[in-house]
Amino acid sequence: MNASQTTMGGPAKSGLAAFETFHALPIADKIAFLSRGRELAHCLFAEQFDKPLLERLIRLSDHLRALTKTKEGDDYVASLLSNKRAMLYFSQPSTRTFLSFQNACHILGMKTCEIRDPRTSSQMKGETFEDSIRTFASYVDLIIIRHVENNFAEHAARVLHDTHRPVPIINAGAGTFQHPTQALLDVYTMNRYLDGGIDGKTLMLVGDLKRGRTVRSLALMMRLYRGVRLLLVSPPQFRMQPDVLAALEKGGVRYEETSDFAGALSEADTVYMTRVQDEHDVAGESSAVNIASFVLRPEHLARVKPKAIILHPLPRRDEIDPRVDADPRAAYWRQERNGLWTRAALMAMMFGLEKTLLERRA
Amino acid sequence: MNASQTTMGGPAKSGLAAFETFHALPIADKIAFLSRGRELAHCLFAEQFDKPLLERLIRLSDHLRALTKTKEGDDYVASLLSNKRAMLYFSQPSTRTFLSFQNACHILGMKTCEIRDPRTSSQMKGETFEDSIRTFASYVDLIIIRHVENNFAEHAARVLHDTHRPVPIINAGAGTFQHPTQALLDVYTMNRYLDGGIDGKTLMLVGDLKRGRTVRSLALMMRLYRGVRLLLVSPPQFRMQPDVLAALEKGGVRYEETSDFAGALSEADTVYMTRVQDEHDVAGESSAVNIASFVLRPEHLARVKPKAIILHPLPRRDEIDPRVDADPRAAYWRQERNGLWTRAALMAMMFGLEKTLLERRA
Amino acid sequence: MNASQTTMGGPAKSGLAAFETFHALPIADKIAFLSRGRELAHCLFAEQFDKPLLERLIRLSDHLRALTKTKEGDDYVASLLSNKRAMLYFSQPSTRTFLSFQNACHILGMKTCEIRDPRTSSQMKGETFEDSIRTFASYVDLIIIRHVENNFAEHAARVLHDTHRPVPIINAGAGTFQHPTQALLDVYTMNRYLDGGIDGKTLMLVGDLKRGRTVRSLALMMRLYRGVRLLLVSPPQFRMQPDVLAALEKGGVRYEETSDFAGALSEADTVYMTRVQDEHDVAGESSAVNIASFVLRPEHLARVKPKAIILHPLPRRDEIDPRVDADPRAAYWRQERNGLWTRAALMAMMFGLEKTLLERRA
Repeated sequence: MNASQTTMGGPAKSGLAAFETFHALPIADKIAFLSRGRELAHCLFAEQFDKPLLERLIRLSDHLRALTKTKEGDDYVASLLSNKRAMLYFSQPSTRTFLSFQNACHILGMKTCEIRDPRTSSQMKGETFEDSIRTFASYVDLIIIRHVENNFAEHAARVLHDTHRPVPIINAGAGTFQHPTQALLDVYTMNRYLDGGIDGKTLMLVGDLKRGRTVRSLALMMRLYRGVRLLLVSPPQFRMQPDVLAALEKGGVRYEETSDFAGALSEADTVYMTRVQDEHDVAGESSAVNIASFVLRPEHLARVKPKAIILHPLPRRDEIDPRVDADPRAAYWRQERNGLWTRAALMAMMFGLEKTLLERRA
Repeated sequence: MNASQTTMGGPAKSGLAAFETFHALPIADKIAFLSRGRELAHCLFAEQFDKPLLERLIRLSDHLRALTKTKEGDDYVASLLSNKRAMLYFSQPSTRTFLSFQNACHILGMKTCEIRDPRTSSQMKGETFEDSIRTFASYVDLIIIRHVENNFAEHAARVLHDTHRPVPIINAGAGTFQHPTQALLDVYTMNRYLDGGIDGKTLMLVGDLKRGRTVRSLALMMRLYRGVRLLLVSPPQFRMQPDVLAALEKGGVRYEETSDFAGALSEADTVYMTRVQDEHDVAGESSAVNIASFVLRPEHLARVKPKAIILHPLPRRDEIDPRVDADPRAAYWRQERNGLWTRAALMAMMFGLEKTLLERRA
Repeated sequence: MNASQTTMGGPAKSGLAAFETFHALPIADKIAFLSRGRELAHCLFAEQFDKPLLERLIRLSDHLRALTKTKEGDDYVASLLSNKRAMLYFSQPSTRTFLSFQNACHILGMKTCEIRDPRTSSQMKGETFEDSIRTFASYVDLIIIRHVENNFAEHAARVLHDTHRPVPIINAGAGTFQHPTQALLDVYTMNRYLDGGIDGKTLMLVGDLKRGRTVRSLALMMRLYRGVRLLLVSPPQFRMQPDVLAALEKGGVRYEETSDFAGALSEADTVYMTRVQDEHDVAGESSAVNIASFVLRPEHLARVKPKAIILHPLPRRDEIDPRVDADPRAAYWRQERNGLWTRAALMAMMFGLEKTLLERRA
């Protein structure tokens, strides 16, 4: 063990206390430490992505999309990681993100295994979290984690750092904290469908901004673009949390908080709707909030700019009336499918395949 | 949206009401609409299969079986759909059909993903059925559905019809309604082991004919063969439903309803046993039915014709005494394995591979 | 049916009674019968492995490990069983053994399917165990079984013996009885890291020796090595069972039973720690046993021989303090990963690939 490890909450302290020391460090320091000099050793935080990296990921996503238009291209792409094995550890209910990652792995030729139901796992036999993660790392080359705890994926990466198999960790949704790959696909989608890209546009985020990890990650990523303006539209109980607002201020991103949904609609280039995150309720507090005026209905569509796009991380409940789906500006289904390409691109880049892929002509 | 879509219960009406309009149409119209001019765009109903199509499926099943006798053949077959991904959405308990489809997918080289337990899915977050299906279609090229509701698979196909990704749907068991791929493997099995094929033979269906979707689908398919006679053997409470009887009459299929199991046995070329479908009980009504005289025991075997075959869609409970298994006429285990080849053939045909496969010499 | 089958509890008796007759036979006779003259037709008991076979498995594991150091080697290995399909039937909670086998299958290119949760299976519909096993065998080429019942895997092999598809069965953990592939990886690990191999070394087994299937299988396998001495360290309630002690005596293996953990530590070349198997409690009896003095802590490390190794089948609870992990003698994480290679080697050998693999240069 070296001095640096001790500083980073290494085994000298051991256990949870050690992790808490590590966790309190600035994100940039944590990433630098965990990465051991490799680019994208893990994907844990939205803050990991700078503008050049985002642009490379967007380019690689587009290229993967083009390559996989033919069976020959599909088979080529699936040959690249045919010898790698990924584990999906999803302890929260998930359909979309789970399927998106699993199928993205399959696009790249990776074999997958999964633990979804804690009752089938060794944690029933009293194993610690740390031991479970080391076990997963023994068998696979990549671990994709969704967990109800905010710091689970980060903790996993920290645990593996001290072992002989520090395999890459991807955060596929962490409590109420972050969901960086969702932010990636959101940025990809906006970049693809907004005329002239994201710079200078107005992004309207609507709904449970307090506990929505998706909107947190996406708002943070907007600091990388020039002149973006955020309209934060929510009931008073579900406002964006102070840590994100502080980061936006420091990053020079203009934002306005409002509960005037209809008023904001006409200013937005992207209307980003979200659902109430009541799985994070402590005592049913969601039911006390009137969300009825934060719903997008057909009668609102006249207010939406002609070139705007409407997004939603899905699943939706009532936030968007299904009759809106037929509007050409409704881009949430394309957004969802874009997750396949951005996640495949992310994993390809993590395994050092960016150059190889780009050299292959579509 | 065009006029046809409106007629078909398209988005103009939206939601359940729209689907109910569509659902009330004759099956032929529904299939013609959903198929968009492609052959076997979906596999939803036994009524989709005409005699030439059945015969082509039987031939392709035989060919696949022959091709996969060597590793070279296996690897060739598995190269054909190596770039396709299938989803198994099974919301009812299932071992056999699930494994049969999953392994048939693997025979063709398809990658699979699955949602089996509703608790791990987004429906817990309040997502509608329509949105879940669209999500699945975003990620995969084929959706295989088993569901407790009679019209779930049909509804899924209808929902996707209006989207940009109307991927093929296979009905792998729909409530008490139909199980068309089971009927396919049953027909394949009878055709394979009955001397001279199915025409002119007597098919005895035994058990819970009222709620057994398997026997419903199989009975309907018998309309395609010449001179088939059906012996419908059940307790009075479990008689075949009137819609099927009407279809048989219209299709010119002779049938007799009886509760005389032993008497019918000596006339049958195929003895098709089934279990009580008590998972469809509303108030435990199955327990009131005496099923003891609809059980095949060793002492019955002398009555069974020497060239007859004994089938069962499995799983069985007590309907067939395990000592019957050793009789050479007991074909249910071969029948079960035949599901692999017929399902692989069906999917190969749905993806347009019939000609390619037949050109490859076994 | 021939005379031999009748002797072996064949269908003439049928059902459980027949199996009990078979089960009472000596293991050597059972294996000879089930194998039909093939080597490693199944992997059911530790007693199946003689010294030459163990040495071949160790050599093949090493070779697989060397071959899979490059993508080219990985892809070659994964081409060997690309046309085979394995089923994992795990009715007990398991993370490690499940993932180890699944990933070992993937290393060899096998496709996998799984039944983990009895609620999704046909056993809910009243199917017998025998029918479920025949169904699995209809679809796949290999069945890997973990079950709470001691004789489940053996029974499965016996059932399939009388059918047309007697596919190989691997026992991946049987009740409190045996866990032969764990013993294989333990032997591989000791052979790899103990200076001069296993002959003449002292193996200390610690913990719940009564119900730990792992230590039972491993102890039995020690009969194949020369001059091995066993230190059986447990609380009085958790002593090794008489059948194993009798087998050790007959096999000429010296053993000592003791509850003096600290005293034994300094004599051991291998310190093999295990957890309390309280999932086999009938009435909470584990809680009455004081296990506190059978825990390996940092302060014990000075007593452990410099060249000794510390093993644990994992998962652990408190038996080994996590601070021990950093000691170079702690080999349990390497032991766990070794399961990948030994299980892949075992399956490769079962499918007749030993010679093919050894001819390929790493």
